[in-house]
Amino acid sequence: MKPHLNLNADLGESFGAWRMGDDLAMLQLVQSANIACGFHAGDALVMRQTVKAALQAGVSLGAHPSYPDLQGFGRRALKCSAEEIEAFVLYQLGALDGSARANGARVTHVKPHGALSNEACRDQDLAGAIARAVKAYDARLILLAPALSALAEAGARENLPTALEIYADRAYEDDGQLTPRGEEGAVLRDAQQSLAHVESMLAAGGLTTRFGNILPTPIHSICVHGDGPEAVATARALHARLAQRFALAPLPSLFASGETP
Amino acid sequence: MKPHLNLNADLGESFGAWRMGDDLAMLQLVQSANIACGFHAGDALVMRQTVKAALQAGVSLGAHPSYPDLQGFGRRALKCSAEEIEAFVLYQLGALDGSARANGARVTHVKPHGALSNEACRDQDLAGAIARAVKAYDARLILLAPALSALAEAGARENLPTALEIYADRAYEDDGQLTPRGEEGAVLRDAQQSLAHVESMLAAGGLTTRFGNILPTPIHSICVHGDGPEAVATARALHARLAQRFALAPLPSLFASGETP
Amino acid sequence: MKPHLNLNADLGESFGAWRMGDDLAMLQLVQSANIACGFHAGDALVMRQTVKAALQAGVSLGAHPSYPDLQGFGRRALKCSAEEIEAFVLYQLGALDGSARANGARVTHVKPHGALSNEACRDQDLAGAIARAVKAYDARLILLAPALSALAEAGARENLPTALEIYADRAYEDDGQLTPRGEEGAVLRDAQQSLAHVESMLAAGGLTTRFGNILPTPIHSICVHGDGPEAVATARALHARLAQRFALAPLPSLFASGETP
Amino acid sequence: MKPHLNLNADLGESFGAWRMGDDLAMLQLVQSANIACGFHAGDALVMRQTVKAALQAGVSLGAHPSYPDLQGFGRRALKCSAEEIEAFVLYQLGALDGSARANGARVTHVKPHGALSNEACRDQDLAGAIARAVKAYDARLILLAPALSALAEAGARENLPTALEIYADRAYEDDGQLTPRGEEGAVLRDAQQSLAHVESMLAAGGLTTRFGNILPTPIHSICVHGDGPEAVATARALHARLAQRFALAPLPSLFASGETP
Repeated sequence: MKPHLNLNADLGESFGAWRMGDDLAMLQLVQSANIACGFHAGDALVMRQTVKAALQAGVSLGAHPSYPDLQGFGRRALKCSAEEIEAFVLYQLGALDGSARANGARVTHVKPHGALSNEACRDQDLAGAIARAVKAYDARLILLAPALSALAEAGARENLPTALEIYADRAYEDDGQLTPRGEEGAVLRDAQQSLAHVESMLAAGGLTTRFGNILPTPIHSICVHGDGPEAVATARALHARLAQRFALAPLPSLFASGETP
Repeated sequence: MKPHLNLNADLGESFGAWRMGDDLAMLQLVQSANIACGFHAGDALVMRQTVKAALQAGVSLGAHPSYPDLQGFGRRALKCSAEEIEAFVLYQLGALDGSARANGARVTHVKPHGALSNEACRDQDLAGAIARAVKAYDARLILLAPALSALAEAGARENLPTALEIYADRAYEDDGQLTPRGEEGAVLRDAQQSLAHVESMLAAGGLTTRFGNILPTPIHSICVHGDGPEAVATARALHARLAQRFALAPLPSLFASGETP
Repeated sequence: MKPHLNLNADLGESFGAWRMGDDLAMLQLVQSANIACGFHAGDALVMRQTVKAALQAGVSLGAHPSYPDLQGFGRRALKCSAEEIEAFVLYQLGALDGSARANGARVTHVKPHGALSNEACRDQDLAGAIARAVKAYDARLILLAPALSALAEAGARENLPTALEIYADRAYEDDGQLTPRGEEGAVLRDAQQSLAHVESMLAAGGLTTRFGNILPTPIHSICVHGDGPEAVATARALHARLAQRFALAPLPSLFASGETP
Repeated sequence: MKPHLNLNADLGESFGAWRMGDDLAMLQLVQSANIACGFHAGDALVMRQTVKAALQAGVSLGAHPSYPDLQGFGRRALKCSAEEIEAFVLYQLGALDGSARANGARVTHVKPHGALSNEACRDQDLAGAIARAVKAYDARLILLAPALSALAEAGARENLPTALEIYADRAYEDDGQLTPRGEEGAVLRDAQQSLAHVESMLAAGGLTTRFGNILPTPIHSICVHGDGPEAVATARALHARLAQRFALAPLPSLFASGETP
């Protein structure tokens, strides 16, 4: 029997009259969707439509909470208290679950977006606030977090089912953090490069850094991007290759057995 | 045994650094709170604090959804499609339920705010969109609607438990609509006047209009206001008098037996 | 000497991470730009970039104020007081002029957007509020208004230089209003059709309605659209044809002589 | 002849239905108003009303730009690029000048708000971006900046008329920064204490730190606060005392002679 693996993508990032990404194409390639909740992208209508499309495609629903920063697309750090972060996560998670419940479904995972995620990968306090909010809402929710991050640690500490992800198109530093976008080679723009990167990490059982080192970690999910035609092509190539060796499945399936996947 | 009656108020209408109303005083006087959900007032933090305070006071939680209009406090009509209205209600209802669930509780009723409510009292399509959204989220949710309104009809049509309310401080027209605020005598500013108005309607078993007519209707709840010291005094007077004759109870208690209260 | 004519387009309608329209292409085809001011589209950064690009292309700057409705792209009517409308127009006009002045230029015209424009074409009070705000800011500003509209009348009443525009791609009713988008044939999708429509109106010296009637009016400007590759192609065809017979010029040139153009 | 001095306060910080501060009382006590521009407080309507009230009271108009953060009242640092900061300042400054021009007046100074100010007092790049935006809009605008701050330096570097202010109710560190609010004694709550603090600094010709040191600097303006009845009382006491020894004047008067005041 093939081992389980999951592909996830950030979806529902249109807003009002503005379109972003090719959600329908991506919903054929990933098994779990991180859906914008109105703070950095996605409005109530976009959220409802994305939830419906994801359910139709058999893709599991995740909340993708952000700092409140529509104009900055949630990519700018905002200095907030832990209490504010908890409230922001609960608000967005609940708001998306509103659409899910209206379709007889449930949000099953949470993955922070943009600057909130970046900060939470380094800052234990922020990571803890996020994990506590998720747990307070429903302790069965899966926290989807970058492997070897402070956020993943916080999930484990709160006994949340924690799915560890790697990025198909991003290089890693020796401390396990993503290479900052400004750096040469931080983002892999080519489908073949991304594919090789992912396969090398799956084979190594850990992050492979741009200095050639291996940082061992379980890997449950691969994050792929869907903005731009090239991104969709990369996702398609990844899906085709990985489907041969893995049972690609929604996140809840990975935790269904009760064992860490 | 005393018959059941409910007092409700709009709470959680602070936003960020701005305070509005004396929520703590009002939570001692009403049994059900209509809590702003961020579209006309109330931010994620205010919502969380209001939910906690309401639960501590034994007050049942209601979502108070609005048009998206913070600067206009949800008092300006916005021409939206039924699809948008459904999405707005689900978003706000879910967002508030996020705070409720994080405290082991649930939102148990929904009452539209401001212009959204005014429009839904007259417009069957709008009223239907609201009722459908509430039902889609959870068919056990109580719709709190002005007696004899199109909104109340929509609740009944969707088989939602529908609580009918009257306003303690507002005069009524002969068609059951509130006298527009611009008109002389539309708003009763005095505690004794409000008290007499409410008692006359409870005694008559219907709305008493400013032309002396009676429009028969069940009355499950009295809406009181809490902005301004006078408003709190009025609420206090109403509470004192009504508590003598009625068992003042949260909305879910009125529907607990399964019979229309 | 060729008579003057102006082509205008709505530009700067991107927001944050979201792109809309091909502004650089359109800036080669129109002589006046209606620039979104942050209420329905356009943020402070987009506005600055659009102003710079327009100035570089020799295109005159217009404010394109809207109801405050980012999620609805300003296309939903919002019931506001005249006082609110005046304040909204002054805010947006000033905000755009901030970018203009920072580049040694000035906003030289104002054209309301979306639902605000539609309402102002029918509603004298709303139209008056807009015209008064424009005049209060600077009585030399040109009001760009649909020909035969209440807005155009209000501009004339306030003695504002008022430029009258027709839409290249929209059919007209016999009362001079645009055929509502819902109706069959309301929007001309084809470059040749648009071209014929414009030429017929210029030849007739008035609006040609879809019932074959002519409503006489001066025509100073043609509004073209730039969202979608087809729209740019239509604008290009219009520009090519009209440039043969007219001196295509920015709006201020049309009023420079002091005579009505 | 008495030397010139200026009192300034942050005004126009109401928003929509929410009131903040006693602007009418404060307008009798200060000579220059820093008016919120819609990013942290103040909407288009509040701005217009505040401008009118200030002009009626003979108080000079200043823009009080902020990070875009209504819910956080502009008190949370937001990591922005210099380009974004310049655009934000131009937008807000222009928007307020819209109301000023509509009343035949002009904004004559700029003072950043909250976290934007705090960051700009320490960060040369941020301070430079603000000063450049102000200068680009109009090189005659006065920059109102805390004495001995990076913001004041940036104003001088850009050759802007730069007014140096001290806070009546805040303690200073030995490096000239405000004692952080969390620290014991950071905020003086008492009118007599504030009065003594201000008089000691005016007498010393510099900031007096909480460790008893003096940091020499010109002082052009005293910032007083107006939220809360106590704050108004403090402002009143300051005004009464300082009016005996100084000619209290709007900021432009201090720079009218062309000499540094």
